[in-house]
Formats: sequence, structure tokens, C-alpha cells
Amino acid sequence: MVAVYQRPLVAMACMLLWHAAGVLCMPDPKTREALIQQEASQQTGGQMVLTDSEKLLDARLSKMKQEEMARTNFPPSMHFFQARHLIRRSPIFSLLQKMPKGGALHVHDLGMGDPEWLVKNVTYRPKCYMCVTDERSVRFIFSSGQPKPTPKCSSWMLLENLRNKLSNVTDLDNSILANLTLFTNGNPAALYPNQDVVWKKFELAFMAATGLITYAPVFRDYYYHGLKQFHMDNVMYVELRALLPQTYELDGSTHDSAWALKTYRDVTREFIADHPDFFGSRFIFVVHRGMNESAVRGVVEVAMKLQNDFPDVMAGFDLVGREDKGKPLWYFREALSLPAERGVTLPYFFHAGETNLEGTDVDQNLLDALLFNTSRIGHGFALTRHPLARDLSMKRGVAVEVCPISNQVLKLVEDLRNHPAAVLMSQNHPMVISSDDPAMLGSSGLSYDFYEAFVGFGGKRSHVGTLKQLAINSILYSSLSPELQNKALDVWQRKWDKFVSENAFQKQRCGYSNFFSHLPQCFL
Amino acid sequence: MVAVYQRPLVAMACMLLWHAAGVLCMPDPKTREALIQQEASQQTGGQMVLTDSEKLLDARLSKMKQEEMARTNFPPSMHFFQARHLIRRSPIFSLLQKMPKGGALHVHDLGMGDPEWLVKNVTYRPKCYMCVTDERSVRFIFSSGQPKPTPKCSSWMLLENLRNKLSNVTDLDNSILANLTLFTNGNPAALYPNQDVVWKKFELAFMAATGLITYAPVFRDYYYHGLKQFHMDNVMYVELRALLPQTYELDGSTHDSAWALKTYRDVTREFIADHPDFFGSRFIFVVHRGMNESAVRGVVEVAMKLQNDFPDVMAGFDLVGREDKGKPLWYFREALSLPAERGVTLPYFFHAGETNLEGTDVDQNLLDALLFNTSRIGHGFALTRHPLARDLSMKRGVAVEVCPISNQVLKLVEDLRNHPAAVLMSQNHPMVISSDDPAMLGSSGLSYDFYEAFVGFGGKRSHVGTLKQLAINSILYSSLSPELQNKALDVWQRKWDKFVSENAFQKQRCGYSNFFSHLPQCFL
Repeated sequence: MVAVYQRPLVAMACMLLWHAAGVLCMPDPKTREALIQQEASQQTGGQMVLTDSEKLLDARLSKMKQEEMARTNFPPSMHFFQARHLIRRSPIFSLLQKMPKGGALHVHDLGMGDPEWLVKNVTYRPKCYMCVTDERSVRFIFSSGQPKPTPKCSSWMLLENLRNKLSNVTDLDNSILANLTLFTNGNPAALYPNQDVVWKKFELAFMAATGLITYAPVFRDYYYHGLKQFHMDNVMYVELRALLPQTYELDGSTHDSAWALKTYRDVTREFIADHPDFFGSRFIFVVHRGMNESAVRGVVEVAMKLQNDFPDVMAGFDLVGREDKGKPLWYFREALSLPAERGVTLPYFFHAGETNLEGTDVDQNLLDALLFNTSRIGHGFALTRHPLARDLSMKRGVAVEVCPISNQVLKLVEDLRNHPAAVLMSQNHPMVISSDDPAMLGSSGLSYDFYEAFVGFGGKRSHVGTLKQLAINSILYSSLSPELQNKALDVWQRKWDKFVSENAFQKQRCGYSNFFSHLPQCFL
Repeated sequence: MVAVYQRPLVAMACMLLWHAAGVLCMPDPKTREALIQQEASQQTGGQMVLTDSEKLLDARLSKMKQEEMARTNFPPSMHFFQARHLIRRSPIFSLLQKMPKGGALHVHDLGMGDPEWLVKNVTYRPKCYMCVTDERSVRFIFSSGQPKPTPKCSSWMLLENLRNKLSNVTDLDNSILANLTLFTNGNPAALYPNQDVVWKKFELAFMAATGLITYAPVFRDYYYHGLKQFHMDNVMYVELRALLPQTYELDGSTHDSAWALKTYRDVTREFIADHPDFFGSRFIFVVHRGMNESAVRGVVEVAMKLQNDFPDVMAGFDLVGREDKGKPLWYFREALSLPAERGVTLPYFFHAGETNLEGTDVDQNLLDALLFNTSRIGHGFALTRHPLARDLSMKRGVAVEVCPISNQVLKLVEDLRNHPAAVLMSQNHPMVISSDDPAMLGSSGLSYDFYEAFVGFGGKRSHVGTLKQLAINSILYSSLSPELQNKALDVWQRKWDKFVSENAFQKQRCGYSNFFSHLPQCFL
């Protein structure tokens, strides 16, 4: 075919027409290609210069993604609960598991761990009591003697006794597990038909877990075990939204939030001693947005004190709970102004825009979070609908903490290709990927969320530069001091280089074991 | 409560802190309010100055919307097929039906009408034959004698004979109807589990309808009847994507595309004679993107001739069919360059970005449509993911034709609050609302799509100014000449003023008939 642009006279006629009447001839393929490249360079990681090895890895990833997109059951378009077994078999997911992902900056302390471990380890510990609430949920308490009755709950049963009476404890354990997570092998659309139902179940799961996790010895262990999940998934740093709840001992004595924070700090040190390549954790003290202004004012006071007493691990403050049903940030404006009034720095890391109720009071949280100088935005699902807030966050370098699986399970979006982060990503809006509450969502660690981001809303355009940028972002937008960020980046870079060199080339097909052809890693 | 900004000394301390350390005190409520207003003014219709009556109407609408959003079953978050009966009972919908909506700029000729009318009127006409294909779809033909057999279809049955043999024809008629539309009272998620299935059914419905509609006498009547649907729904102007198919007579003789266009012109004149407040129709000649380059080249030649011969009704050219499976625009670049090469103006109105396959060749259609100087963009669902293309369309004033129900039914998005048009609307990107194929989607006219836009992705922020802007846009972005646009705007403005004056005030509660309390219009 002879293209128009190769015919000088025709091209000239076209140029004249273009100026005279706005009529265009065939666009110059070079111009077109340049525009396509320009748009691609604007996206997250679009400016990243890749090494030769990274380019090789990228070619492999690109081929894998093409195959993934050609599948009839494309995991990001499905509910995560139904897609998880497919994702586990995906060669891209295997690679993402191995990839050093940097930090997980949006994870809730009571939702970070493994609910199976809670059932199989924690509820099997001595002195663990359970009652069943009127809402068919469960509550737990550890106690040296028979605990006092709890309103709207059955009498407390010692789990050890209960299990001894049962010939088969599997049903009981499964039933406990189902109370501690939203994950189900059933049909999630039928189980959770709307946001109200799924949020109710979500909150009940937290309430059920709380009695187990706030038992002081479990509190330490749960956190240690949670760190292990992230470390195993090649996450080197965690920033936890921490309720720093009151914890208790067998005799009913209690500890305050400072104890919780100190315990987190001590256990982190212990974990680093056991896993020297783990970089650490920091904590964002949170309070439920259902509380009233004066109560929040009190918590802000505590937060300021903690920020002063534990500057190495305390990162700042946030409000949690369902935005749609809670009070908007503006309601708490006096409480949130306290630190500035006192000349104290208390960084904010506000959840904002975790809603699709466009135009409501709650929908102003995004703007208000920015007006209160938030360091990052939790979720920011509604940000693309707020051009002014988006310009502000873009200019100020306020990263959005995108938690794709959480947004899907909590019914903000179904097909993850439609996640608004696709829009933010196309413009390299500051962004990190996180996993919110892996315990409740069945998405341990960070790789599942990275998969949804990379294969789902990243689309075919996202590449190894995108992944690299997202990992680097998780350090750059962390609350770590610049010095520690540099140190963390050095550690991460070494891990990354090793990962790239180990995975840039296609491994030999498995020799003796190629009859395990269902194992995709065999053919990577 | 005493706010910080009311305490001068504290405010001054805050200012100093802000400059010294980036610490913010409570944001000034006036500044905050100004920012909220500034963002609101950026949206579609945000700059519209409202009359007193319009403000009254807006207050009513706002109250209605608040009530609508508080419902457990919020229609825009549901599949349209399951939401339609709820929408029909919505007082907002009643108002939107009465509202003069201007033009419908993205409607396909063979999908514009009423499938029930096809069954109850057309298939009852004499000499109508039907066969059943191997795929359990149906085909129709009108013929003076027994038609020749069609491959992969049963022998032709005269419907009159078939109906005479049946004691009850309702089942037959329902089954024919189910072949002519996607609409179902069943569970759409189960019936149409993925895009492949729903598109297959969509295309089969067109194929089934074609045999009925391309019978020359029906061709006239179908179009006339289709106009009636839009006129009844207070749409005054239509731009049809027209296949201008070969039509046939009882004796098997055929007519070409010029005949079809001429017929459309004549019937439009007839319709205007019968309905003097109807403004008219124009036609965008379309060809299926499954065709090869040389075939499309031939059709472009025909399009140029039609553009020359029927300048009053011929608007331009487009390619149709499922973008994801068809050839990308760039494949047709030589054919599409023909008019410019010849110095002929053939405006383009390309479908582009009706996909969520981000980053594929097809996903470049948006950029290519703009490079080929498209006058509007059909769907543009993927536009928000293409910042460069979006900047171009914004700057050039290229309107996106948003068809919410079509996008939902064809499985690009589930919850219509997440439709990417929400993002475009927040920035007043040029936009019109349209209904694509109401026959196939069960969404006759334009009001259902206006409802989804206004209540769904418009959110609480969209108001009477948004509606007004969308209606005006449908004239400003039409293919009408500037003179005719002005004329159309005058006609529309009169209708609009009447609509506002009739609906700005709450009507009296129904007197004698208030026992019909299920009729919402009674309480408007």
C-alpha cells in the first residue's frame, strides 16, 4: 500500500486543506506514533528507564499478560473470591509474589493477618471462651475464670470444653472462620447483595476478631504473624492503621494505647532481628468516625502525646469506618485543628473518597482531607470525579492508597478494569497499591492487589516500569524520614536487581518434573 | 463552637506555622466553600445561570434525588432490566419524560424502534415468512411466493399459516419478541454472563430484525414509528447511524442505499407535516468494521456521493460493530483518507473507545478518531484513560456521545455511578446523552438514559443546569448548520420555558383520585 504521506503533492494538498477547512488527510504515522508514545510516557512508570534485563523481563511479562487477557474468565473482571483460584495459577501472579514490592502503606492492624491462624492457633489456646450473639455472630474472650455475661450474647462457652464434646470439630472451626472473614467459596453476589450487607458483615468480622486479638499475648503474636505474611510476600515495610485498642490479660487487667504502640515497636524489633531484610513498620493511630467530636478531640490529644513519645514509630492520625455512614471530616474540624493550634505536628493520613455517593457531604472528604494537609489519601476512590481536589493532590504529591480488592469486595466497583485508579495511573498521579484488610478479604500480603492493579486497571499498557514505579512509590510516599527512605530504597534496589536477574530469562523447561504441567512456574 | 479562624492571634500563629512548616490550621470555611463552588462550576451545566423558575424546579429535583438516593434499591446501581420498573415509578423519571431533551445524536436506525410493534404489527402483515436458524435464532422475509431456502435455517413458514395452526399464539409472539431484543424479565447476569454472550445475542437480534425492517414498506413504517417513540418522549431531533441497507419488495426486486436515504428524507418530511414541532433527522452512513479495507473504500466512495447528493440529510460517515472484535480505525486509514485526498468533505462520527481492553490496538481508536478529525466520538467509554486524547477532544470541542444503558447492558460497567462519564461531566467535557439501540435495550426514547445520567453518574451534584446544558449540547454538537442550530435552539427554548413553568411548582395533591397513591405524578 502506498500511504498518502509518501506522496508529496497529495500531502501538500492535504496541508492546505487542513489549514483552509480543517480537513485532515491520513495522519502522519510518525506523528501518531509520537502521540501514542507521549501518552504512554505520562502514565505511572512511563518515564522509567529500563535496564536490558528489565526489558527482557518486560517482554516476558507482556507476553504473559496478552495470554491472560485472552482468557474467557479474565480474573480482574470477576469477583476476587471467584477469581482467586485462577489468579493463583497465573504465571504473572507467581512473578508478582517474588517481586520485591516495597511497602504496604494502607493496612489495618486488626485485618492484617491470617484468619485461619486465628482459628487453628489462637482459639485452640487455653482459656478461650466464645459466645454467640443475637445476630449469629461470635465474640471471644480469654479469661482465667468464667467471664461475666455479655449483653445480647449467649453464655460464654470454654472452647476447649466445647470441642471435647464434639465428635468432629471441623464444622465448628469452619463456622468460626466464616465469622472472621468475608471470604467465601459460595456466591459472593448472593451473600453480599449490597453495600449495607457487606459492610455489616465486615464490621461483625472485626468485632469477632477483636476479642481474640486484644488478648495481650495474642496481640503480640498476631502482629508478628501478620508481619510474616507480608514478609513472605516480599513486602519489606508496613504502615499500619492502628486502633491501638485496649488490650487485656487473663485476670482482666488492661493496657492502654501506649502499651499497644510500645508492643508493636518491640515486636517489630524482634521481627527484624529474626528477619534482617525486613525494614520495619510505622503506625497511623486511628479512631472510628462514628464517634462524636469531643471524643475525637480526646483521641487527638492522645495521638499528639504518642507522636511526641514514640517519634520513631508513630506516623500520624486517621479516622476509620464506613465513610458513607460516618461523620464527614468537616464535622471534626475543631478536633483536627488542635495540633496546628498548639504548634504540634501530627501528620494526617485520611481515608477519603471511599464512596460512590457523589455530591454528598461525605463526598467532600477528599477536599477537606487536602485542606487539612493530609500526607496521603486512603482509597480516594471518588478522586477522579473531583477535578479540583485531584489537581491539588497531584500538585502537592499526595499519594492515593489504592486497595483494589477491598473496593471490589465492599462493592464500589465490580469489574476491576473500571477502577478509577486506571485514570489516575494514566496520568501518573501519586499512587501506591495496598491490601487494606487481607484477613477479611482473603488476599494475604500484597501480591493479589498488585495483580489486580497490573493486569486489571493497568491494562495492556502497564509494564515492568509501572511495577517498579509502584514499588518505589511505596517508599517515597511512606512516612519514613528522607534518610530512612534512602536507606530503604537501597535495600529495595538490591532486592529488585536480584529479582530481575533471576526472572528476566525464561527458565529451562522442567526436566524430570515436566509431568507437573499444571504448575505454571515450571514454564516461566 | 468558636472556630479557629475567628481567633485572630491563633489564626496568625497558624499562618506562620503554615509558612514555616506546612502545618495548616482549620481551613477557612469561606475558602473551603469557594473551592467547593469552584469545583461545582467546572461541571457540565455548572456555569448555567438559572431563572427563578428554574431554581424552583431545581429545588424540587434536588429533593426528589435525595429521596431516590436513600432507597435501598438504587436504580442506577442495578442492571437496567431489573431497575426499569423502579425507574418507571420514579418521580424524577416522570419529569425527565416531560422535559424537552433536544436531540438524540447516537441512535442506530435498525435499533431505534419498538420490538413489540415489530411483532404485533409487522409480523402480522400478509406474506411474512419466518425460519429458525441452527443457532435457535429467527429470520424473516416478505415474499409473494414461497422464498428460496436460506442456509442453516429451517424451511420458511408463512406466519399466517403457523398462527392459524396454533390454539394460542402468545407463546409464539413472545418467543419472536425475545429474538428481537436483549430485554428480559429473567436474570440478565445469568442470561448474559460475559461480553461475548451478550454481543452474540445483540448481533442476532439485529439479524432477526433486518429481514422485517428491510422490506421496503416496513422500512418506511419502522422509521416513522421509531420517530414517534422519540417524539413522544420529547425528543425533537434525531441523528441516526444508518446502515442504509438494501431493501426489497415482495417480488424480490431491491433498492440501493440512495433509495433508503431518500426514503428517510421523505418520511421525515411526512412526519414533520404530521408533527410540526418535530425538527428533523440527519443520517450518518455506517458500515460494519468487520469488512476489509477495499470494501470499506467502496463504501466511502458511496458515502461521498451521498454526501454530495443529499447534503440536507446526510451528516457523515462511521464504522459500527463490536470494536473489540473488529478492525481498528488505523487499519482503514487509506480508505478514510480518500475524501481529504479528493478535497471532499465527509464528516466523521466515529465510534471509539467502546472497550475496556486498555492498551490494545482497538484502544487506539480514540486517538485515531481524533487524528481523522472526527466530529463527535461514539461512546468514548475509554476516554478518561487517555489523557492526551481527552485533552484533544476537550480543546477541539469534540463531544462524546454517552449511552449509559447500552454500556451497562453490553457489560462495560455494572454500577452506573461508576460510568466514566462522571469524570467527563465533572470537567464539562463536551457531551451528549443518547440511547444507542432502544429496541434492543428496552429503553425506548431518551428518558431512561437521561435518568441514568442525571441520577446515576451525575450524582447529587448534577442539577437542572446540567439537564439544560445536556439538552443544549445535543443541538450545539449536532451536525446541523449554525443557522439551523439557532433555529432549533429557539424551538427548544420555547419548549423548555413551558416545561419549567409547568413543573417548577409542586402540584396540588390529587383530590378525588388520591386513592391512586401509587401514581407518583399525583404528588409532584
